Amino acid sequence: MRLSPRHPRYRSLVVRAGLAEAHRQGIIVPEGLIAHGRGEAFDYLLGERTSPSARRAERVAAEWLLAARRPVLSVNGNVAALAAREVAALARAVPGLAVEVNLFHRTPARARRIADQLRRAGVRSVLGVRPTAKIGRLPSDRALVDRRGIYAADVCLVPLEDGDRAEALRTRGQRVIAIDLNPLSRTSRVADLPIVDELTRALTEIAREARRVRRSGRRPRLRPFPADRTRAEALREIGRVLSRAAARSRRPRRRA
Amino acid sequence: MRLSPRHPRYRSLVVRAGLAEAHRQGIIVPEGLIAHGRGEAFDYLLGERTSPSARRAERVAAEWLLAARRPVLSVNGNVAALAAREVAALARAVPGLAVEVNLFHRTPARARRIADQLRRAGVRSVLGVRPTAKIGRLPSDRALVDRRGIYAADVCLVPLEDGDRAEALRTRGQRVIAIDLNPLSRTSRVADLPIVDELTRALTEIAREARRVRRSGRRPRLRPFPADRTRAEALREIGRVLSRAAARSRRPRRRA
Repeated sequence: MRLSPRHPRYRSLVVRAGLAEAHRQGIIVPEGLIAHGRGEAFDYLLGERTSPSARRAERVAAEWLLAARRPVLSVNGNVAALAAREVAALARAVPGLAVEVNLFHRTPARARRIADQLRRAGVRSVLGVRPTAKIGRLPSDRALVDRRGIYAADVCLVPLEDGDRAEALRTRGQRVIAIDLNPLSRTSRVADLPIVDELTRALTEIAREARRVRRSGRRPRLRPFPADRTRAEALREIGRVLSRAAARSRRPRRRA
Repeated sequence: MRLSPRHPRYRSLVVRAGLAEAHRQGIIVPEGLIAHGRGEAFDYLLGERTSPSARRAERVAAEWLLAARRPVLSVNGNVAALAAREVAALARAVPGLAVEVNLFHRTPARARRIADQLRRAGVRSVLGVRPTAKIGRLPSDRALVDRRGIYAADVCLVPLEDGDRAEALRTRGQRVIAIDLNPLSRTSRVADLPIVDELTRALTEIAREARRVRRSGRRPRLRPFPADRTRAEALREIGRVLSRAAARSRRPRRRA
């Protein structure tokens, strides 16, 4: 397909073409493509920018990851396809951050391909290709984890997560940081720290803040986070974007 | 994958599994799966129900199709996968409605598979498998049409359309009825009659109204339609759903 940079939706068309390619390579499953479309719609409704409240959430997330004893970043096919480089940058910015492949639709080959993709992007060590433990109460392959990774983590960063697993982690007493563009999703509601922002923007900002905290020398803390308020602010933001769009949105005149 | 009917999103999970299957059969392209996800998000924001203003639009659409000299329903991969039966029912309810396959990502094999799917669902005659005409100013395969179908139509029903083609049809002086869950999309803004509703609900309601009008014996007219007002009502509906969701949406308590 030829993509013109002058197309009004050029950027999202490029991302979509990349995802279709990742799908052909066996990294993304069909359900992952549908999930991406849902995210796209919400990002569109959020004005395709990081809101002030999302930025605050990303900064607290950076502190939590730095303050954690065993922080883990969980990676699925969509995350690897959309943000392998950002994952690598975050792993560099947060010493001790484990990166673990965790899939709803798992096959050994797919897990290996995703790990390869992450390594090529610069992630040094990737867990989860051969699971060594199991989380209870989870019917999907999401339950299969690494004993040194998600199983033992005190803080889990789970981008593009499903609600069942977010809930299972929380039930185990693990702190869940979610990145999910839908502020009403079960994942966002269950998370201790819901980040309502697009994946690459969120990971980049978390990494930037982690570098800032480390340079400053101040001690990171697991400080409290107002999850409900943050989600309510995201909903208000969508309301504002819709009102502005409604005011602007007039029907173009029929061309002669 | 096992799907439990008790899952909070059971219905959309079933639809997604069906689309993934249609993708494996070569009916839906990866880009179509992403587009479905976008639609899902908007349907969710519209409360997954037909709003009163969408219902009014569907009733006017039925009249337009009955009043047209050459009405055409354009079908792409997503439409065939999601609503082949509803397409067949509408073709029965509107005598003279041509059904034409029209694809952004066209291959002869894919066009044939989609036509087969429609015939299996009960559509008697399917145009567009071997295009016989071309619409100007359209860079994609969408330009390839049937001389007796979209090319000559006075009223085109285009579900799940792209903005470029909706605009090209309108520029040619054809009346465009769109079915698109995003009231802000270019397709919705360009359409003479934008229906902001989920595909199967919309097609079912249009067919029901067409049968009603024909039974009543009254003469259908191409009566005027307030497109901008309808889209504005859809935006207000989303606003209402969001406010209600925000009020309801509290964080569940951590389980013991």
